[in-house]
Amino acid sequence: MSNLLIKNVRPMGGPLADIRIENGRIAAIGSSLVADGVAVEDAGGRIAIAGLVDAHTHLDKSLLGYPWYKNEVGPRLIDKIDNERKVKRDYGLDAHVQSMRQSLQSVGYGTTLIRTHVDIDTDQGLIALEGVMETRRQLAGVVEIEIVAFPQSGLMRRPGTAELIDGGMAMGADLVGGLDPCGMDRDPKAHLDTIFAIAEKHGKGIDIHLHEGGELGAFSMEMTFERIRAHGMQGKVAVSHAFCLGMPDWNASQALIDTCAELDVPILTTAPPSREVPSLKRLRAAGVRFGAGVDGFRDTWGPYGNGDMLERAMLLGMKNNLRRDDELVLALDVCTTGGAMAMDRAAHALEVGGRGDIVVVEGETVGEAIVTHAPRKLVVTAGNVVARDGKSLRERP
Amino acid sequence: MSNLLIKNVRPMGGPLADIRIENGRIAAIGSSLVADGVAVEDAGGRIAIAGLVDAHTHLDKSLLGYPWYKNEVGPRLIDKIDNERKVKRDYGLDAHVQSMRQSLQSVGYGTTLIRTHVDIDTDQGLIALEGVMETRRQLAGVVEIEIVAFPQSGLMRRPGTAELIDGGMAMGADLVGGLDPCGMDRDPKAHLDTIFAIAEKHGKGIDIHLHEGGELGAFSMEMTFERIRAHGMQGKVAVSHAFCLGMPDWNASQALIDTCAELDVPILTTAPPSREVPSLKRLRAAGVRFGAGVDGFRDTWGPYGNGDMLERAMLLGMKNNLRRDDELVLALDVCTTGGAMAMDRAAHALEVGGRGDIVVVEGETVGEAIVTHAPRKLVVTAGNVVARDGKSLRERP
Repeated sequence: MSNLLIKNVRPMGGPLADIRIENGRIAAIGSSLVADGVAVEDAGGRIAIAGLVDAHTHLDKSLLGYPWYKNEVGPRLIDKIDNERKVKRDYGLDAHVQSMRQSLQSVGYGTTLIRTHVDIDTDQGLIALEGVMETRRQLAGVVEIEIVAFPQSGLMRRPGTAELIDGGMAMGADLVGGLDPCGMDRDPKAHLDTIFAIAEKHGKGIDIHLHEGGELGAFSMEMTFERIRAHGMQGKVAVSHAFCLGMPDWNASQALIDTCAELDVPILTTAPPSREVPSLKRLRAAGVRFGAGVDGFRDTWGPYGNGDMLERAMLLGMKNNLRRDDELVLALDVCTTGGAMAMDRAAHALEVGGRGDIVVVEGETVGEAIVTHAPRKLVVTAGNVVARDGKSLRERP
Repeated sequence: MSNLLIKNVRPMGGPLADIRIENGRIAAIGSSLVADGVAVEDAGGRIAIAGLVDAHTHLDKSLLGYPWYKNEVGPRLIDKIDNERKVKRDYGLDAHVQSMRQSLQSVGYGTTLIRTHVDIDTDQGLIALEGVMETRRQLAGVVEIEIVAFPQSGLMRRPGTAELIDGGMAMGADLVGGLDPCGMDRDPKAHLDTIFAIAEKHGKGIDIHLHEGGELGAFSMEMTFERIRAHGMQGKVAVSHAFCLGMPDWNASQALIDTCAELDVPILTTAPPSREVPSLKRLRAAGVRFGAGVDGFRDTWGPYGNGDMLERAMLLGMKNNLRRDDELVLALDVCTTGGAMAMDRAAHALEVGGRGDIVVVEGETVGEAIVTHAPRKLVVTAGNVVARDGKSLRERP
């Protein structure tokens, strides 16, 4: 929560200005602001954007720092899940170390707010949660981390998991996770009843991984809607991926989108090129809160990704066929303020009163900054400089 | 056509070896090869891949070297086409300069073979073709450029265009282009009859842009197949984009794919995340020649792209949901040898007897090289070093 004056910067690619941060918040944006003895950074005429928000990732499972993982995993979802548990044991993977590595890499890319899903299962219990919670403590003031207690290996299919999720919430997780109530857990009623019960008990929200496509995903969303109404949890239940919102039947998907708006269900996407995905413009038009994330990367699931949410804005733009500069600004908004709003963070925006989370990026316009995603010149969290020239100031373990 | 010894390199990520190129061809791959007075490059244990092949791009329309183009273009295809002709006039765009800029940027990324579509229309006539032909002359030995005479603004809808295409073929273009016989030209019979007639007259092949999706694209492909049979042009007609091959009706798309195999119709993709695209694995399984390209980039059509075919291999992998290392190798093959085979270039491969086009890339495995697509250490065309550390040795105008 510091004071800082960023001089010679173009907010969102507009005219040159200075930005003054006081006590971690943006106090003024204008010309020739005075320093008053606070630290000064000269942005050299570059563009300022709000802090990037990674609203869907997996800090505990990256293999960053290890040699390249040669992926020879089978094609089914359960192959990937079972393989991952085995690799974690074989490597002795330390969720604290891995989450430090990924978080600091993301800070280098300008991410100042993260929602991470952390695996909880009957093999490893709450160890990964403890590790990521330790990372959250150590990186306070550098990057804010919100934790979802995530039943990656299934909830009903692995007895004992629900109790562990409950224990994770008591320990300090922020949200209850869910995963494909039909496709993965094969018992949608029990799955959803269980996670809603745990959430209600702890007075917390929910974030459900929903990879189920088309009509199956629609069914799981409808069952989720029913429970949001029954528990009065409007605004408290998010759905990640939500591929079914991209299904070709426009009327069916629009009905789901409209209900997401009515029940205030935020949608979080990673914009994978290979899947049908929720449409940025349709969700925005309906007033649905919409954020994005990098998903897991450099893990046993797949080789792609690096933590860069500016590159993710590009992929989101490519997936949504956004070509105009004003459309690219929309994609960036989803990766900054939109994601923060989906996570109930008000005032995460490049405006007076907004959080002093600012990223200085290269480019003539915001569009060029997104498409080239060159190394970030400067990253500021709540008025503190946390990264320069693409590298976090804190050393990666 | 030179001699070169590349020492201390890992072909396709395999064990350390040396590669000797003689008279522009790979003469030996083995350990402790002797230099015999030829130039020597030490690859420092990095990976060698074959020269990258950009089998679908537009060298004449990039705005590289100009300030960022702020895209405010309307949503329809015809908006983009009409806007582009206007911008070309307003900028006084020089196709020779632009194609030099793009080609040399691509050389820096390791591309040694390009198929480019060049706009021919009743506004600018054959000027762009002349410009790109001049680039082809100047860059002989650096990057091989194959030219398609492309009716970007339509063929039948703009009288006089067919005569210009015919003139372009007489001038030295390598293939006749086509564009959405239904969707764009509104007269599929006349469009296809015209381009086949021009191709037959000049004894050249065809490469048709086909953005038409689903059943409409299938119809245009079937009409194309009919003419391939009638003209005996098996193996001479390629289809670019071919989004209809990705349509959900598996039986319908498989029938088209099987006919592509039967008539030896190469398919060229740019793997756009926003569209249905031909499946790499299905095309390979059917024995269809399959290449990839970067498409136009940094032009009036859209902001994405940079000319990097290694990054395109990543996008192709993401679009096809390829996660295993052996699958990533397949994606790279499409962007190297596969593209060359689609362009009728035999022996573009990292093997004895293959062309001495070699790119030295960073990574522990080929998969890591694709996903990180770090600047290329060394690019060799027919035994000549043409780029180092991501930059072509020839200066960009």
